Amino acid sequence: MLHILFLFSLLFSAARGSVQDFCVADLTAPEGPAGYSCKKPAKVTVNDFVYSLSAAGNTSNIIKAAVTPAFAAQFPGLNGLGISMARLDLAPGGVVPMHTHPGATELLLVVQGTITTAFIDSASSVYLKTLKKGDIMVYPQGLLHFQVNAGGIPAIAFVSFSSSNPGLQILDFALFANSLPTPLVEKTTFLDEAQVKKLKAVLGGSG
Amino acid sequence: MLHILFLFSLLFSAARGSVQDFCVADLTAPEGPAGYSCKKPAKVTVNDFVYSLSAAGNTSNIIKAAVTPAFAAQFPGLNGLGISMARLDLAPGGVVPMHTHPGATELLLVVQGTITTAFIDSASSVYLKTLKKGDIMVYPQGLLHFQVNAGGIPAIAFVSFSSSNPGLQILDFALFANSLPTPLVEKTTFLDEAQVKKLKAVLGGSG
Amino acid sequence: MLHILFLFSLLFSAARGSVQDFCVADLTAPEGPAGYSCKKPAKVTVNDFVYSLSAAGNTSNIIKAAVTPAFAAQFPGLNGLGISMARLDLAPGGVVPMHTHPGATELLLVVQGTITTAFIDSASSVYLKTLKKGDIMVYPQGLLHFQVNAGGIPAIAFVSFSSSNPGLQILDFALFANSLPTPLVEKTTFLDEAQVKKLKAVLGGSG
Amino acid sequence: MLHILFLFSLLFSAARGSVQDFCVADLTAPEGPAGYSCKKPAKVTVNDFVYSLSAAGNTSNIIKAAVTPAFAAQFPGLNGLGISMARLDLAPGGVVPMHTHPGATELLLVVQGTITTAFIDSASSVYLKTLKKGDIMVYPQGLLHFQVNAGGIPAIAFVSFSSSNPGLQILDFALFANSLPTPLVEKTTFLDEAQVKKLKAVLGGSG
Amino acid sequence: MLHILFLFSLLFSAARGSVQDFCVADLTAPEGPAGYSCKKPAKVTVNDFVYSLSAAGNTSNIIKAAVTPAFAAQFPGLNGLGISMARLDLAPGGVVPMHTHPGATELLLVVQGTITTAFIDSASSVYLKTLKKGDIMVYPQGLLHFQVNAGGIPAIAFVSFSSSNPGLQILDFALFANSLPTPLVEKTTFLDEAQVKKLKAVLGGSG
Amino acid sequence: MLHILFLFSLLFSAARGSVQDFCVADLTAPEGPAGYSCKKPAKVTVNDFVYSLSAAGNTSNIIKAAVTPAFAAQFPGLNGLGISMARLDLAPGGVVPMHTHPGATELLLVVQGTITTAFIDSASSVYLKTLKKGDIMVYPQGLLHFQVNAGGIPAIAFVSFSSSNPGLQILDFALFANSLPTPLVEKTTFLDEAQVKKLKAVLGGSG
Repeated sequence: MLHILFLFSLLFSAARGSVQDFCVADLTAPEGPAGYSCKKPAKVTVNDFVYSLSAAGNTSNIIKAAVTPAFAAQFPGLNGLGISMARLDLAPGGVVPMHTHPGATELLLVVQGTITTAFIDSASSVYLKTLKKGDIMVYPQGLLHFQVNAGGIPAIAFVSFSSSNPGLQILDFALFANSLPTPLVEKTTFLDEAQVKKLKAVLGGSG
Repeated sequence: MLHILFLFSLLFSAARGSVQDFCVADLTAPEGPAGYSCKKPAKVTVNDFVYSLSAAGNTSNIIKAAVTPAFAAQFPGLNGLGISMARLDLAPGGVVPMHTHPGATELLLVVQGTITTAFIDSASSVYLKTLKKGDIMVYPQGLLHFQVNAGGIPAIAFVSFSSSNPGLQILDFALFANSLPTPLVEKTTFLDEAQVKKLKAVLGGSG
Repeated sequence: MLHILFLFSLLFSAARGSVQDFCVADLTAPEGPAGYSCKKPAKVTVNDFVYSLSAAGNTSNIIKAAVTPAFAAQFPGLNGLGISMARLDLAPGGVVPMHTHPGATELLLVVQGTITTAFIDSASSVYLKTLKKGDIMVYPQGLLHFQVNAGGIPAIAFVSFSSSNPGLQILDFALFANSLPTPLVEKTTFLDEAQVKKLKAVLGGSG
Repeated sequence: MLHILFLFSLLFSAARGSVQDFCVADLTAPEGPAGYSCKKPAKVTVNDFVYSLSAAGNTSNIIKAAVTPAFAAQFPGLNGLGISMARLDLAPGGVVPMHTHPGATELLLVVQGTITTAFIDSASSVYLKTLKKGDIMVYPQGLLHFQVNAGGIPAIAFVSFSSSNPGLQILDFALFANSLPTPLVEKTTFLDEAQVKKLKAVLGGSG
Repeated sequence: MLHILFLFSLLFSAARGSVQDFCVADLTAPEGPAGYSCKKPAKVTVNDFVYSLSAAGNTSNIIKAAVTPAFAAQFPGLNGLGISMARLDLAPGGVVPMHTHPGATELLLVVQGTITTAFIDSASSVYLKTLKKGDIMVYPQGLLHFQVNAGGIPAIAFVSFSSSNPGLQILDFALFANSLPTPLVEKTTFLDEAQVKKLKAVLGGSG
Repeated sequence: MLHILFLFSLLFSAARGSVQDFCVADLTAPEGPAGYSCKKPAKVTVNDFVYSLSAAGNTSNIIKAAVTPAFAAQFPGLNGLGISMARLDLAPGGVVPMHTHPGATELLLVVQGTITTAFIDSASSVYLKTLKKGDIMVYPQGLLHFQVNAGGIPAIAFVSFSSSNPGLQILDFALFANSLPTPLVEKTTFLDEAQVKKLKAVLGGSG
């Protein structure tokens, strides 16, 4: 019986060998709208599906915060699977400034400390909450949101995304960390010229 | 032959009567993640599929601009079909301020005048261009962008979206036209307190 | 502060540099079911996102009409973004003959003149309307439709599609501009042999 | 152990009871763009997932053919699952005339007899083949195609679709079985007036 | 200026009021293939978007493990957003037995302890790893996988899913906790009759 | 007129030549999450869209059954079109053992003999039925199911899938035909060690 059933195993193998259960990113091959090209199955190992977010990000910066992404570009096993993750470290007083993810909904989990956070919808309503350890909060796709450490100890959160390539547009960088001319920034944001020039200076923008 | 072929027509009708080629929104029935419930096919007429954007929006306002939407809520025939439209009117000096569409890519067509416009990507690169009549420009989903009248005459554009419900988040309204506390706005945008309070006053915000 | 915040900017750059906000088509690289391969981000400029449909199509032909497409193959910036456009020019008496778009819903905007148009659904119901400047009409995916100039002056319309690759199957070309044998055309369309042969001759078909 | 493990079973049941593995259509409740509302899980039985296509369609008609659909409207268990089926019966000389499925790709399987079939793509290329028992052929979404009995015995085929609601637009019915005015049919199809009037008469159309 | 800009705000409100940025589940209204019906926007509060997974599941059971779901049925704010979460508690010796999620990819994050885990692909290859705090692992959609506490202390993990309704099929419950006749289980799993009867008894199955 | 209309044909050809109605798999080029790269349209022929499942699979094996797949890897014309097929041959006493398709819903059609079949949902409910010729049954995506010949003659069925790459995970192969250590199999399935070792031996597994 062993022999015959084993033959049966071979019989099925044509179907099984051709199956694409996953598409681990080959970052050196062409990328398309649906994601990166797939690594050859024979070269895939368990390590393609494992990544570490154990290291705290460096919060020795002006915002006292760090975002460590595990998107498809960092964690190729996620490619095309519609999910990804990032780690947020917020020292006391830390802030992840106002931003959006153009391509994904975000689900945040607090694992240490307390975090005050909000998103704002198309009707300009604010959904504001202070979260504690074990709380989760969802930010619907593409809407502005932020996170602020609400306590005296470092806060840590892990955020999941509904895409392996969620994108990240930080408002201040979008407005001030490039060469978009100051008069256009003023005109399209109603900010004062002095304010625009001040933040352009801080963030390395020009114009 | 007439008779027999006509019978054949009836034969096929079981299949044809049950087909859902479209789902005109019944705005009074439940709405789900994929859109509104469908109006009964027997009540659908050609007028459900036609809408008018012939009227200029009223640009007698501080931004000298108007956006007239034809999304599923205004134009029920679009429901579930993955497309919608809006009309932009920009008087001389007019501006459609910095905004995003959380749920759609936008494709703009200039039909009168000239428009200076840009979008900014996740890497803070600016894609800036002055468009003239007949030019089209695409703004990838969820990214910040704006439009400014670049000439001395009224400009008109029509924008199409890759969703029947694209959303519209105007940056200034999201930041200043609600009760998000000023200290949180400051902390998450790096704007000065005076700047925040000034714009909250203008846009009817509090806090 | 400038220095430290600028460092923070670099900190985020790993995440931001890997983000795929768009996938401008590289027409020389492999194409997949979701669209063309992406051009390297470093080579993308604003001109990849801008295209011109300002030129009138040549209507000096038997149908007195022209269709100028701006699909992903002509306008690579659209690749994978789920939207595209085309310009219709209809001289007096002009007609865009009966056709379908196999892969997209169409949304038409009249910008000059008047256009009589209809689509037909799976139950053979006709949705017929004469549109004037500023009117928009939606044609659900895959259904037969046409446009006819309804006035004495040239008509112009711009049509948007819910795909960057909508397809275009013109009924007469599908039936008569190829080598599908006349007896098969007759048998599957109920058209008379003479009619089939006449149109095959006109449209360059054989068989 | 039995007792404790059984408790564990209850523990999991909160998660399991809330899961939507399927959404059997409740044809009396609201329908949306993604399909019909779901029947309550407690009322679902195996018979919701089983349907019979064992009965031959009635081919005593002018086309000597019959199409028996098993779409979501006939077979509610398919609702939302992205697949459906139909049975084709073709008596000798029978034909399923030129048609499209606006919302699905079709995969045909011949189980009896021989069938000559073709589809035509957007470039007007014809993909023509005579299929025998056990052959399968795929017709990409939205493209014109037909089936003709190529032998002296009844042919039977089963066609699968990539949607539970594929749609069915039969060319002759779309053109001639309604009130679309004859001059518009002529103008948009290049068919002669006599041809149009003849087929309108046969198919019960007017105008 | 305040007055005029405020008017502008009202001008935009037609567009903004109709936008569906989210669709918080109304669990009492009809459910469709894309998810639950939406709660009226006016009744939505921030609490619809927040949920707590702070409580440890009860691991006083034979598997010394607990799964606490936060799917759309428990956490209505997730409805239609393509993401959800669950908490895993594994006491020393605990195991989440072999299972699949028919509708989602899973991304696991270890926040305490060590976990030995594997998934098996269509080619029967095993991807086995022992994860420690801060490690993440992805399990592609629909494949068999399990988690086992690999240390002497309680382990905690949070798993995210690429759907708000991922499903959960636990192998032993599927095989043994129902009335599927023992001979059919034997025949389709190659398990011995005694083994099947033993596990049916433990899990409350019959037949 | 012939001449002019023919010119018109050329006019349209720019649009038509660039259209991607299908994407026949080029199995030698990169594969991505959405499927294989496309063969150049100029090299595509009707034979890319036709495949034969006329040959009975070899049922001279322990399960007296055979599965012959026509997925994208065997039948390249299906690539990206969201549908595929397989042939099941079940000799008397034959069984297709418990399995899942991680990426697709299955629709089974019996064309000869009788088949007893069931699927099991997330709540462990069993949907069991004996099907006869002409019956169809749908198995929602990712759920465990099996087929057993219920009569004294060979049974034949054709199964369609809602993906061109449905996957196939056979339970016994996943559990026993690899090197997953016996203690882990025991612990995660509650099977007895002897049972696990027996089936590992039969199926060629180790550990």
